[in-house]
Amino acid sequence: MLSSGVFAGAFDTAYAYAREDREGKQFGAELTRIGYQGDVPCGSHKLGAHFELHIEQGPILEAEAKTIGVVTGVQGMRWYEVTVTGMEGHAGATPMKLRRDALVGASRMVTAINQVGWDHAPDAVATVGLLESHPNSRNVVPGSVFFTIDLRHPNDAVVVGMEAEMRQRLASIAADCDLDVAIECVWDSPAVRYDPDCIAAVRRAAEAAGYPSREIVSGAGHDSAYIARVAPTSMVFVPCEKGLSHNEAEHAEKSDVVAGANVLLRAVLETDQRLAERAGRGV
Amino acid sequence: MLSSGVFAGAFDTAYAYAREDREGKQFGAELTRIGYQGDVPCGSHKLGAHFELHIEQGPILEAEAKTIGVVTGVQGMRWYEVTVTGMEGHAGATPMKLRRDALVGASRMVTAINQVGWDHAPDAVATVGLLESHPNSRNVVPGSVFFTIDLRHPNDAVVVGMEAEMRQRLASIAADCDLDVAIECVWDSPAVRYDPDCIAAVRRAAEAAGYPSREIVSGAGHDSAYIARVAPTSMVFVPCEKGLSHNEAEHAEKSDVVAGANVLLRAVLETDQRLAERAGRGV
Repeated sequence: MLSSGVFAGAFDTAYAYAREDREGKQFGAELTRIGYQGDVPCGSHKLGAHFELHIEQGPILEAEAKTIGVVTGVQGMRWYEVTVTGMEGHAGATPMKLRRDALVGASRMVTAINQVGWDHAPDAVATVGLLESHPNSRNVVPGSVFFTIDLRHPNDAVVVGMEAEMRQRLASIAADCDLDVAIECVWDSPAVRYDPDCIAAVRRAAEAAGYPSREIVSGAGHDSAYIARVAPTSMVFVPCEKGLSHNEAEHAEKSDVVAGANVLLRAVLETDQRLAERAGRGV
Repeated sequence: MLSSGVFAGAFDTAYAYAREDREGKQFGAELTRIGYQGDVPCGSHKLGAHFELHIEQGPILEAEAKTIGVVTGVQGMRWYEVTVTGMEGHAGATPMKLRRDALVGASRMVTAINQVGWDHAPDAVATVGLLESHPNSRNVVPGSVFFTIDLRHPNDAVVVGMEAEMRQRLASIAADCDLDVAIECVWDSPAVRYDPDCIAAVRRAAEAAGYPSREIVSGAGHDSAYIARVAPTSMVFVPCEKGLSHNEAEHAEKSDVVAGANVLLRAVLETDQRLAERAGRGV
């Protein structure tokens, strides 16, 4: 979502170019290296409306035997980076009572963050997806641990409450384990409500084509969440097997993909006609 | 301890040469690369006795203001490699109740292993020093986690009991979290009792030089633990600041290092005289 964020004005290009992956590769330098640094100002191409077709990446449509998800918005999400600092020591010669084991503390934090998700289920999710322990040697008591947190809920106020609960639990565990903890919010993406006319166009397209459908809030982030800031937007979801995504076993039935493409086409054609009529031009 | 293990016959050279680090570099190939592959058969140089001087790597001597540790042996230790397998999924679109989060399960295991150490404290230690989560991406529910365990106690029977307790706790957590767990013991180093004559030589050397001393069991593994299988052995410990080791802040006072060297020299000279008298030769 970095590039759509620049398109929509959420970030500037300098911010985007300076982003580094965990190996230190910069986004801007890598664009140049592969010959993808263009010269058209980002965002200069104005959009009358925006539609995006995607697999659901979740289990709801499959469970309810719906072919089309009429996407009404995207849940709010916040990302955090956490560093837990203790004291390295020899695993054989450092008695339990003298340890400040950063991984033991971080492990209690991971389970606490999972509990924050459960406390606000079924609509909330809380995930620690990335964790790195240092110095990561089998006979050294870990001295520091870096990990990330992903908190999401369709209601921004609940996300705020989840963050407060998470911060309180982590501070309590750090104090209990004689560890230092630093928590930084690195991304805050508020809940998004898509355009009523675009949502209606997707709903009518599904009905006209005879596909069973339901309204749905996206659990995943999408480029459309940013584009919605600068153009009327909605999305079309189709089911994926067992809700699996970000997994090599990800699978969607060809008939569902075809249905999604049909709905996308009908929604775009109807919206184009509507915009043309509003502008007083022919279709 | 790989090379001393080959010297003592605990491993053969083929095993040692084939060891790989986490980047896949092989011990034998790296020896060749840096020009350290010699042509003298390992173990062909016989030893009359063996003494090793080392910092304690623990806090006991400093706490009791003893300059010399007369090392009577090495605690038993076992190393394990554990793989926890769940299911990858999208962090935003996979509801809490449908997750099989390998990192949440592994985190509960890390705290359980820590508890095994506490259950047998003060002499036992239990450590998870290395942990790697896969795919390690901030918006993916972790699908698998690899980690190591280090269990130690001066009494082998207690180490056996700690392993049984560890295995029971990990199996219970895996079942509770709908995860698979595989546990492999990759190293088993039984407790070692050093040679009574060598231990006595170290004790007398400390007394003769006027240094305060105490007997101590090594918490760390040492080359001497293997060499003790093929030659009479003991060790000399000196204090290190706050017991810190495997840490860049590791520090020993120069006066303590000098004391350790003096005790080492006296113990070697006394043992040489004793062996010479036994062999009927002059010193």
